[in-house]
Amino acid sequence: MKLSELGEFGLIEQIRRTFAKRSPQAPIGIGDDAAALFVSPGSAVLATTDMLIEGVHFDRSTTDLFSLGWKSAAANLSDIAAMGGSPRFALVALALPSPTTAEQVAELYRGFTRIAKRHGTLIVGGDTCGSLRDLVISVTVLGEAKRKEIVTRAGAAPGDLVFVTGTLGDSAAGLELVRSAEYGVRSKDPNVNKLIEKHLRPVPRVAWGRKIAASRCASAMIDVSDGLSSDLGHICDESGVGAEVSAEQLPLSRALLAMRTLLRPPLWYALSGGEDYELLFTVPPGRLQKLRALRIPARLIGAITKDLRRVLIGPGGRKQTLAPSGYDHFAGPRAGKGPKR
Amino acid sequence: MKLSELGEFGLIEQIRRTFAKRSPQAPIGIGDDAAALFVSPGSAVLATTDMLIEGVHFDRSTTDLFSLGWKSAAANLSDIAAMGGSPRFALVALALPSPTTAEQVAELYRGFTRIAKRHGTLIVGGDTCGSLRDLVISVTVLGEAKRKEIVTRAGAAPGDLVFVTGTLGDSAAGLELVRSAEYGVRSKDPNVNKLIEKHLRPVPRVAWGRKIAASRCASAMIDVSDGLSSDLGHICDESGVGAEVSAEQLPLSRALLAMRTLLRPPLWYALSGGEDYELLFTVPPGRLQKLRALRIPARLIGAITKDLRRVLIGPGGRKQTLAPSGYDHFAGPRAGKGPKR
Repeated sequence: MKLSELGEFGLIEQIRRTFAKRSPQAPIGIGDDAAALFVSPGSAVLATTDMLIEGVHFDRSTTDLFSLGWKSAAANLSDIAAMGGSPRFALVALALPSPTTAEQVAELYRGFTRIAKRHGTLIVGGDTCGSLRDLVISVTVLGEAKRKEIVTRAGAAPGDLVFVTGTLGDSAAGLELVRSAEYGVRSKDPNVNKLIEKHLRPVPRVAWGRKIAASRCASAMIDVSDGLSSDLGHICDESGVGAEVSAEQLPLSRALLAMRTLLRPPLWYALSGGEDYELLFTVPPGRLQKLRALRIPARLIGAITKDLRRVLIGPGGRKQTLAPSGYDHFAGPRAGKGPKR
Repeated sequence: MKLSELGEFGLIEQIRRTFAKRSPQAPIGIGDDAAALFVSPGSAVLATTDMLIEGVHFDRSTTDLFSLGWKSAAANLSDIAAMGGSPRFALVALALPSPTTAEQVAELYRGFTRIAKRHGTLIVGGDTCGSLRDLVISVTVLGEAKRKEIVTRAGAAPGDLVFVTGTLGDSAAGLELVRSAEYGVRSKDPNVNKLIEKHLRPVPRVAWGRKIAASRCASAMIDVSDGLSSDLGHICDESGVGAEVSAEQLPLSRALLAMRTLLRPPLWYALSGGEDYELLFTVPPGRLQKLRALRIPARLIGAITKDLRRVLIGPGGRKQTLAPSGYDHFAGPRAGKGPKR
């Protein structure tokens, strides 16, 4: 059904009925001036927001709406995970260009709720309006965390070890693949599909973030959204330290290593690609046992240094500067020429 | 300075330093993956979000950036006020077209913080990205309220009296005036300036909302953002009731009544104009004393009925249907042909 037939309030009513059921934690949600929410007594409220704009963050020719909804949820859930918190509530604001149908909006919400619900997160509010040209998605996710368990970017100290979960670079490689092929055509190569899946439907590391926070093994944590080199830089900036990372230790997936047709070497995707949504964190040597006891797939990739430089140690011990390389929204691609997010 | 020179992270750092100082309630704000916030123990968290898009919600030729920032804050503060809550924290996401300068962004933030701080609200986070064409502002405001004091849209009962604060229609008249004149040219007529001011820099009724909530005199409340006819309709829909409103009782400002050059009669602006950000609320007759004790400028305009119709009583007692008339983002202007918001 066309939105012009359904109307703004008809659409809101549809979203409310299908995707935003009330709960004891959110007794007042869509359909009032504001949602009323309850977090655990004594917990901090964690709040993060992300805006995704057609033509800047995504391209309708290389993503389906279900994946777009999924990813817009995942990016925000990942931010809560990186604080060590539990995501709880989401507000979704959409600006919809006029040819949009109610079914397309529902598909976007289906993708959003598929991943949000899996991580205990309910849609409790939002805003819906028309757009002259581009689809705009603005998501706010609220979570909670015990004050003492919150892990910021600012606690890393010289001597701490640097770990990262999962594998790096898959999403950026997936973006390149999805752009190179006509969208919708799935490859016969399972590795291609795996990389594209990692790009379109990333899985936020909520459970791992909670474990790391509850064990209090980490001194600082961030999620890899801008690219490892940039995000490690953020930890260094906020903590007032430097870091050394070993190129040989970076966790690369079999799918990425098997891909022969990419434009750049695997290491480039791992360092400069963004949107991995893995957790990058630092652990003081005395707390390594705590981390090991968690049994999460985290790889040791380097160490924090007193020297403020950020250094990549290559094969044979050759050192080079690890410059931030993700995409800068105003300056464009930076030194390392990261892919456009 | 051009944003392309300052860079994304330079801009974030500037916003952080100037507009987003930390506080005991928000010890972790801009510069981490999520803000960490504390509300009063036992209070509910109130959450509301609004997206404003250039060409849809505002036009750069009829507003300055300070006013735009102000208004984007005010609209969200007003939603918290309409729940009876206290706004506390704001997250501001901006998509900026490339000719934007750092000074322009600062001007928008100055307007935002001017009205937000006045109501005890701090900027604690956000997102900043490039936009191919239009300026997009997405604001989330978080507030708090004691559970028992929250006033929803759903509590109105037959026999309750309908009140509205302040005056109605000024903002819609101001919009017409600002469009009819070359922007920036201030009139010699103070009434014109007053109406334009009400449109560009509305004042959310936070203190009145708090008083109404704390006294527990109101059975339902909403802020007038879509226009009185629509917003009274929202209370009726959520409460499962109807209403009768007296045209002669609607509070009209002297400025509006004095304006001889408007395209429509004053009553039209009061019923169909939006963005007044006044509080519309219902009071059971037994609680009228409580309301009077508050000494807030609220006018009795009608009553809630068991009959589900929404009726406007005109001069001489003539009744007519009070149809929702605000702007529908997908269907366009509705029956009453309200102004585009």
